[in-house]
Order: sequence, then structure tokens, then C-alpha cells
Amino acid sequence: MSDRLALFTAGQFADSHAKTAHGILRYAGREVVAVLDAAHAGRSAPEVVPYVRRDVPIVATVAEAAALGANVLAVGVAPFGGALTPEWRAVLLEAAAAGMELEAGLHTELGEDQELARAGVRDLRAAPAGLSVPAGPARRPDVRVVHTVGSDCAIGKMSVTLELDAAARGRGLESAFVATGQTGIAIAGWGIAVDHVISDFVAGAAFRLIEEGARRAPLLFVEGQGALGHPAYSGVTLGLLHGCLPDVLILCHRAGATVLDDYPETPIAPLPELVRNYEAVAALVRPARVAAVALNTRGLDDAAARAAIDTAAAETGLPVADPVRFGAEGLLEAVA
Amino acid sequence: MSDRLALFTAGQFADSHAKTAHGILRYAGREVVAVLDAAHAGRSAPEVVPYVRRDVPIVATVAEAAALGANVLAVGVAPFGGALTPEWRAVLLEAAAAGMELEAGLHTELGEDQELARAGVRDLRAAPAGLSVPAGPARRPDVRVVHTVGSDCAIGKMSVTLELDAAARGRGLESAFVATGQTGIAIAGWGIAVDHVISDFVAGAAFRLIEEGARRAPLLFVEGQGALGHPAYSGVTLGLLHGCLPDVLILCHRAGATVLDDYPETPIAPLPELVRNYEAVAALVRPARVAAVALNTRGLDDAAARAAIDTAAAETGLPVADPVRFGAEGLLEAVA
Repeated sequence: MSDRLALFTAGQFADSHAKTAHGILRYAGREVVAVLDAAHAGRSAPEVVPYVRRDVPIVATVAEAAALGANVLAVGVAPFGGALTPEWRAVLLEAAAAGMELEAGLHTELGEDQELARAGVRDLRAAPAGLSVPAGPARRPDVRVVHTVGSDCAIGKMSVTLELDAAARGRGLESAFVATGQTGIAIAGWGIAVDHVISDFVAGAAFRLIEEGARRAPLLFVEGQGALGHPAYSGVTLGLLHGCLPDVLILCHRAGATVLDDYPETPIAPLPELVRNYEAVAALVRPARVAAVALNTRGLDDAAARAAIDTAAAETGLPVADPVRFGAEGLLEAVA
Repeated sequence: MSDRLALFTAGQFADSHAKTAHGILRYAGREVVAVLDAAHAGRSAPEVVPYVRRDVPIVATVAEAAALGANVLAVGVAPFGGALTPEWRAVLLEAAAAGMELEAGLHTELGEDQELARAGVRDLRAAPAGLSVPAGPARRPDVRVVHTVGSDCAIGKMSVTLELDAAARGRGLESAFVATGQTGIAIAGWGIAVDHVISDFVAGAAFRLIEEGARRAPLLFVEGQGALGHPAYSGVTLGLLHGCLPDVLILCHRAGATVLDDYPETPIAPLPELVRNYEAVAALVRPARVAAVALNTRGLDDAAARAAIDTAAAETGLPVADPVRFGAEGLLEAVA
């Protein structure tokens, strides 16, 4: 029986933390029959979040999702800290009772909860067996690696990466998207959630993904995680950067953001400084230049978006585009 | 029954990867009755490694260690990658059969091996329950945090940290050593091996250690892990740095080292550049200056050691000392 997903977003469908649901709707070739979100029920998904571009009804209850034919409940939110709350667990149990399989990418592994495990669970974030340290820069496969890095979490690094991969394949290049987080894995069907492996092995996990990617295509687009200046996740960011050993970086930023979303006391440095910082830390292991900036202009009108892009280009001297809004061709020229 | 340790070093007692055995011998107030290492059997520990400063016999077999009264076999090596090999497992089973408890800080958790678990095991690297992301810079306890960072792994960051803490307490300051790795935990009896927590929580684990440390003393010496330019462990290093939110850094380096021990293809940058790199990445979350350099001069004669210290001081313009060899008073002035 093929998957028919209901995406559970717990009242947060309009929020950037619902990026898993948004990403699956926009990018995954998987059937989605409903979004389960009582706060937005009665509307359609693209009415609330135009980015998703797929007309799916939003419903309030598990019973409604079941009536639409859902056989998998997928948690569509990536909450800060990644824990399963008692309220969410209750919804998962209700879905299980309605005969659905459960899919999630939380740090709380559903498979370790005996009651949930009975339903049949897919923990997208579970680490594969046999991880260790990377073979290292001298043994990196001979492929071209393009890696997205960012000024914050949940600003669209994965979307940029997917758009670039699609644009490359559209142009006849052999390329592959390399998933490093739960949403990317839900979309691509393979990958490792590097933020859930033990910290000594985060670079080793990234290196393994490059080895696997090299068997798929000679041009790899590796999605970034976190941010170098993020008080919680910087270790993931740097381990991933040093493990995937990129040739070229794309700096992702949300237009107008000046502080971190999860830590508003922490400022975001100006773009030229972010470029320098990423190039400096990359060079500690293997030099990589920032070749372009991907600017997330969501929420701005077209004129404001184009003005923000022009400003960022003037500030950095780099090609700047919003590939999600205006297409990825320009960025692809700069990096592939 | 109090612990009487046999330290198992698998032929590597003379190697820097036996740092767990060396650290316990030199710094832990725990009884050690033998080192178990067939390659060096028949000699005493300080004959092979003068640093350890404790006269303990080296024996070849579990039976000899048992005859000396050992009731705990502690794995004294921190191997690259942290895995338990079949050969080591056989020794652990032999010790278990001789009635010993097993203690280790490997990534392979002994407690998950049913046969070993029957012996009674202590996994020093096991992550505590309930870890998550840190509360962040705005909620850091009001203590002074001194953090050792380094140019490579296994160059003596923990020793420097312990020497500073001892010197501070010797001077009547209320201070505490904060253990972030298995050897530190084996010595101090508390701490978290931050390299074994999932990478999203490495900063959260460090932050929790600062919260616990703040209940113990107003001056904390936090041992560093890995190195910012290490292809495998840089994520641990940065997550720990951003999680423990130090006031002051001490840069640790092994005199004469120019490439990484585990990745000889990766050069170590000159000291002034390392100082700038660490200060730059710290400042992304909370500014901290490098106030001193701790130089590991092991293997040099006294004249060469003093010359290396003078050179490093001239290069960096900072106070430089080898606190393990010549005392920690000078460094303490610079950081406390």
C-alpha cells in the first residue's frame, strides 16, 4: 500500500518551524491527503503558506485525516530542541489507533516508546549503524560538492539546495541532493540527520554522505544545518562543513533578519562578515569560497525583494538571488 | 569495597592515546594497583611515562592484576573513533570472569553488550537524560569561565585545566575543574562527555555543566575537546565553546607540532592565527579573548623547552608557559 500522508503541524503550520511539512508539500514526490492543524483547519495549505504550492486541505482532527484516506501521520514540525510533547504524543496515539503508521524526525525516537512503536514507526532522524570519524580530506571522493550555509536556522537552506539540484538536472547535469536533516530525508528518501548523531561522528556522517553521493552523481548539493554563530547548533554546522569538504559555499540569509530567531540576544553579523567567517573556518580543513548568496525574500513584495537582492549584491560583490522565488538559474551559473 | 583500579592500555601505554591512564595516574585520587599492558610489562609506570608521577607496576595479564588486588578494570586508552575492538573485548571478559567491574569511556557502550553488562559496567561517556539545547548567552550563570582550546587533540588540554584549578585552589580561590570528556570524568567524578551526546545538544550539555559548576564554585576551569581545525572533531570543539560561553581562553599547543596527529595532511596554523580564529568564532556568540598560551614541551630538554616558550611568547605577545612542567602560577595570573 503506498503512503498517503497526513502532515501534523500542531497549530504551527504558518510558522517557519513547520518547515518539514512545507518542504514535503513543495518538494517531495509523495502523496499528501491532508495537513492536520486545528489552528488553520478549513483552509487549503497554499492559502496559509503560498510557498508550498500544493492544494491540500487542512483538517482539525485525526478522524478527518483518516476519512481522506491518510495511512501515515508524519510530524511536520521541527521544534526547537526536537522533543515530543505529551500533547503531540496523544495525537500520534490517536492516529495509531486509526490504523496509521507514524513518521517523524524528532530527537525523541518514536521507536523507543513501546506504545507508539506498536503502530509501526519511521524515525527519520535515527542514526545509521557503524558511524565513526571521517577518512578525511586526503580521501575525499573526487566529486564537486556545493554546500549551503546560513545566517540562522529555518531560513531556507534546504529549499535553496533542492532548487539548485532541480535546476542542474533540468539543464542536463548529473547531480544529486544530499539530505542532512529530517525534512530532506523525508523528501529524498535517503540521507543522515547529522544533528542526531553523536557529536564526535558528525563530520564522519557528512563524509559518509559524500561517499554515498559520489556513487549517485558527480555534482552534489549538500544541504546545510544551523549556523556558525548559533548558540545551540554551531557544532552541527561546523562538523557538517568539515565533513562534507565542499568546493563551493552558498550563503543563505533571510532578508532583513538581524538577530537569531531562537536567541534574539544574538545578532547576525553583516553579510560580508558572514562570508569571511565561513571561508575562514572552511579553510582550516579545506579551502572553499562563498560563490553566491541566496536571499530568502518571503514576506516582501516583488519590488522590495529585488531591492533587497540588489543591496546584498552591492554589499558582498557576489551574485545574489532568491532561487525559491525567482528561479535558481543565476545561482547555478555561479556554483556548478 | 573501594575501587582498586587496573588500567588497561592494550600495548599503547607509552602513546598519547593512553591519556586516560596517564590522567588517572597523575591527577585522580583513586587507588591504582596496576597498569595492564603486555608491551611494557615488568617496568613501572613512571619509567615509561615520567608525566604520570605515580609508582605503579605494569603487568602483562589479567591474572597478575587480580593478584595485585584489582577489582575494577578501567580502559585507559582513548582510541581514535572510540570503538571497542574484539581483542579488547576479550580482555574485558577475562577481567569480568576474574570478578572485576569494568569502567570505560568508549563510544561503544559496554552496558549495551549483554555479556559484558553482566560484569557490572560504568560507561563514563554515557549521556545523561534530559539533555536539550542551551538556555543561551542571556541566561548564563554569573561565574568566571576559563576554557582551554587547542591546536589538536591529545596535547594536554585537560592537564592544563587541572593544573590551573589546583593552582587556583592552592592560592585559596574557590574554583572547580569542569570535566567534558571521559578522562576528566574518571578523575573528577562528575561531568559530561560532550563528544558522546547527539550533536544538536553538545552546546546544551556544555551549558548544563556551567550551571552545575556554578553551584560548586564561582571560578570554573572547563577542559576543551578536539580542535577548531580538526576534520573529525571540530564540531565538538565549537559546540563546547559556544555552550560554555567562556570569559577567557587558553590556547594549548604541543611545541613543534605542525600537522594534526590523526590527519597529517592537515596543517596546524601558526599560533597567532589560531588565536585570531578562536577569538573570531567565540565572538559570534560571546566575545572571549585568548589570554595565554599553554605549551606542551614534553620530549624537549629544559633549555629547548624554555626556548620554545620564549619563541611562542614573542610570536603571540601573550604569556606562555608549560604548566605541567614548570607550574601553573604564571598562567593563573593571566586568566583568573
